Amino acid sequence: MLIATGSTEVANALAAMFVVLVAAKLGDELFRRLGQPGLIGEIFAGVIIGPAVLGWVAPGEVLRVLAELGSVFLLFWVGLETRIGDLRAVGRPAALAGTLGVIFPFAAGLAVGLAMGHGSAESMFVATALVATSVGITSAVLIHLGLIDTRASRTILGAAIVDDILAMLLLAITTGVSASSVNIWGLVLTVVMAVGFVGFAAIGGTRAMRAKPEVLQLPSFPDSALVLSVIGCLGLATLSNLIGLASIIGAFLAGLIVSESREHYSLEPEIKPLFAFFSPFFFAVIGMDVDIAALTSVSAMVLLGATVVVAAATKFAGAWLGARSLGAGQAAFVGVGMIPRGEVGIVIAGIGRTTGVINSELFAVIVGMSIITTLITPPLLRRLAHHVADEVGEPTA
Amino acid sequence: MLIATGSTEVANALAAMFVVLVAAKLGDELFRRLGQPGLIGEIFAGVIIGPAVLGWVAPGEVLRVLAELGSVFLLFWVGLETRIGDLRAVGRPAALAGTLGVIFPFAAGLAVGLAMGHGSAESMFVATALVATSVGITSAVLIHLGLIDTRASRTILGAAIVDDILAMLLLAITTGVSASSVNIWGLVLTVVMAVGFVGFAAIGGTRAMRAKPEVLQLPSFPDSALVLSVIGCLGLATLSNLIGLASIIGAFLAGLIVSESREHYSLEPEIKPLFAFFSPFFFAVIGMDVDIAALTSVSAMVLLGATVVVAAATKFAGAWLGARSLGAGQAAFVGVGMIPRGEVGIVIAGIGRTTGVINSELFAVIVGMSIITTLITPPLLRRLAHHVADEVGEPTA
Repeated sequence: MLIATGSTEVANALAAMFVVLVAAKLGDELFRRLGQPGLIGEIFAGVIIGPAVLGWVAPGEVLRVLAELGSVFLLFWVGLETRIGDLRAVGRPAALAGTLGVIFPFAAGLAVGLAMGHGSAESMFVATALVATSVGITSAVLIHLGLIDTRASRTILGAAIVDDILAMLLLAITTGVSASSVNIWGLVLTVVMAVGFVGFAAIGGTRAMRAKPEVLQLPSFPDSALVLSVIGCLGLATLSNLIGLASIIGAFLAGLIVSESREHYSLEPEIKPLFAFFSPFFFAVIGMDVDIAALTSVSAMVLLGATVVVAAATKFAGAWLGARSLGAGQAAFVGVGMIPRGEVGIVIAGIGRTTGVINSELFAVIVGMSIITTLITPPLLRRLAHHVADEVGEPTA
Repeated sequence: MLIATGSTEVANALAAMFVVLVAAKLGDELFRRLGQPGLIGEIFAGVIIGPAVLGWVAPGEVLRVLAELGSVFLLFWVGLETRIGDLRAVGRPAALAGTLGVIFPFAAGLAVGLAMGHGSAESMFVATALVATSVGITSAVLIHLGLIDTRASRTILGAAIVDDILAMLLLAITTGVSASSVNIWGLVLTVVMAVGFVGFAAIGGTRAMRAKPEVLQLPSFPDSALVLSVIGCLGLATLSNLIGLASIIGAFLAGLIVSESREHYSLEPEIKPLFAFFSPFFFAVIGMDVDIAALTSVSAMVLLGATVVVAAATKFAGAWLGARSLGAGQAAFVGVGMIPRGEVGIVIAGIGRTTGVINSELFAVIVGMSIITTLITPPLLRRLAHHVADEVGEPTA
């Protein structure tokens, strides 16, 4: 090639996007034909083309932003499908499932870490990485199974919000402990802001939208509903980030608010192409973070296996116990739905590595645990779907 | 904020996207209420929030990729709306308009540069920067006016392809001259590859699709048409880049191919949200490249004014002369539609500055010319729309 007329950086990014989309769609199609969830195929495609195997594509800034937009638009769409009244109806089991689903893994992680002779800072980091649930994966499975509009699904979504607030709090304490500077008032302020943000957006936002449901339609601008709701989605995601919560919490709240607007029905088919375009990057980038080379020693494999069992069992037990008022079958569905750690576990492990609290083997173990818990969830959810499927479309109290 | 649970890089990118979308939509709405094209408001919004005025957002890699995707999905959609047969019907005037619309500005730029005492390398660079038309802006205006499906619009699209091939050739010669290493066989190979790529995609691709119009529908994957056509779009855009053509040429060809598929009608409403989301970044990033500070001297302003006049007049004259077989009114529409230099002029100026051939004042002048030619076109096209509007929907020979 003689010359490139465009910027090479931009041209390379387009080429990388092409490779990721092709690989993800091949993985998707292959796994669907094998009767498996397509998103697992997309994650495997990321493992193959990523640094672990072929090394064709490395997850740089552009791909990570596209991945983030994938989870943001996914949760925005889930929010659009959810009504605040239905969410409030499961408030109690959701809060319990979220809280117990945090306490159990944290306690277990801390106990095991200390018992194995790790320091308290390191053990707390591992315990925190065991906590955070990624609701993105579960949401994608629920959409695929047509089960978003059920009591169990709404319990998972509500529990995920509680989970994220508690996880943020624990991460703040943990990073404070490792820097020996826990600031009690700072923690209180953080929690107040997080709870205030969620409450204000969920209750105030949906009420304001119900009062003025035509607000998304500008007089001189026919396509404004889509653009204004995307602006609201990115705005609440950014605000969420500033407070210390995951972007997807803000995106879900934005969807919840927009779902009260008059444009609600016309918006759904317009948001779908956005998450169809972005979500393959979300799944493939999770796969690209797999570091097979760091997990070849027997001790690392044993540690990984033990971590996965502890992470899955404690999260399931906590969430199941919290949601048992829904009945045992639905509670099991909620418990499994909370298992995937996805990108959240990876991000927390990254903070631990950057700050030098955990070593590279432990980092690889946590990343591996995040990915394995993510991979085991979709087939399990499908097996338990019958506990929930009866109830589709049925109005809740 | 105690801590950020996500990657700061990604969180900052989301925040920047939020600011750009809000500003672009405010500019859009304001200009529409003033009776002006909304996209000019989006470009102005980029000037205001960009480095020239407020400095809130700088155009980094992520924003440039989003901008590129904006023009790529815009031209993909335009391709979807275009049938190869209709394009071929305007082959002759399009080829003439493209060719003369390149020769006139190049000759004028070269003559003026040499007359002003600049060296031959520098003069050739300025002449080349005067050449390249950006069809993105014109396409957006044509979509907005509902005039995509007219002979004049198809002539503009065809001429833009010819224009891009010739501009690439001139840029190769110019960069060769400035490095004193023009390789004749390399140039011939480039042109053969470019013409071969366009011909093969436009004729072979559409024929193959007509032979198997259901190919975009995978058995186990209901949403495959959208994802497969986006893959095709990014693939041809990347191939286009590799050959040295602009990505948007590949995207347009991909749209042209997909428009022959059975999924054609169901795809249009799915592609629209993608370009509604990305195109504000395309327009705003053009505005962010404005460098007001470099244009405050009187001599720079005079030079800029003269450059704009030469760039607009010679492009109009060449394209008008080439398209005059369509009748004087439609030829004038074609001539005006070719005037905007948009991001292409900015990219060429950037190459000249990076390689040290042109100084920073001349760079600012070329960027200013690109933006001013972009800003004057939409109102002019609207004034000339009546020459073209009669023909909407009418079948062409």
